[in-house]
Amino acid sequence: MFIAMNRFKIAPNRENDFISIWKNRESYLDEVPGFKEFHLLQGASNEEYTLFASHSIWDSREAFEAWTHSEAFRKAHANAGTAKGVYLAHPEFEGFEAVL
Amino acid sequence: MFIAMNRFKIAPNRENDFISIWKNRESYLDEVPGFKEFHLLQGASNEEYTLFASHSIWDSREAFEAWTHSEAFRKAHANAGTAKGVYLAHPEFEGFEAVL
Repeated sequence: MFIAMNRFKIAPNRENDFISIWKNRESYLDEVPGFKEFHLLQGASNEEYTLFASHSIWDSREAFEAWTHSEAFRKAHANAGTAKGVYLAHPEFEGFEAVL
Repeated sequence: MFIAMNRFKIAPNRENDFISIWKNRESYLDEVPGFKEFHLLQGASNEEYTLFASHSIWDSREAFEAWTHSEAFRKAHANAGTAKGVYLAHPEFEGFEAVL
């Protein structure tokens, strides 16, 4: 099992705009081999930002990496990250292998 | 759904010691109301440390917080963090609510 997370710093009071972007996005993930589950996660808030993380579960790191090189990935990200004033920084990717 | 993660910075070449600690630990989680699933995750390595994360899935934040105040939690953490030279820093907790 492999978990792929992208961490997002979102501007205060723009949390609902960020959630809407994800809600209305066509991810095409259901057609991707090795994909198991997706969630958008909301973490802690401070004065500067609210932390969010995209969280997807895959059969393996290989399945995830194959997706990042696919046409489905390109389509899903064609309009990503264009909402003005919502994103305070580039997302930070972290990949995790389940060892237990 | 609530996801509780603790991020650990582990000394280079001590990764297997860290995994063994978790493998041999009695978590008592299966008896806890609202607990769904636990994994230990291994992330990226650099020259200074390897990132690990404990990753547990709960029905709700309330279920997780009730566990942190329980006898089961106290028992599970009675011997935590005592392995010399394995942990480079205190773990950093992050809690996430699934919003999608």
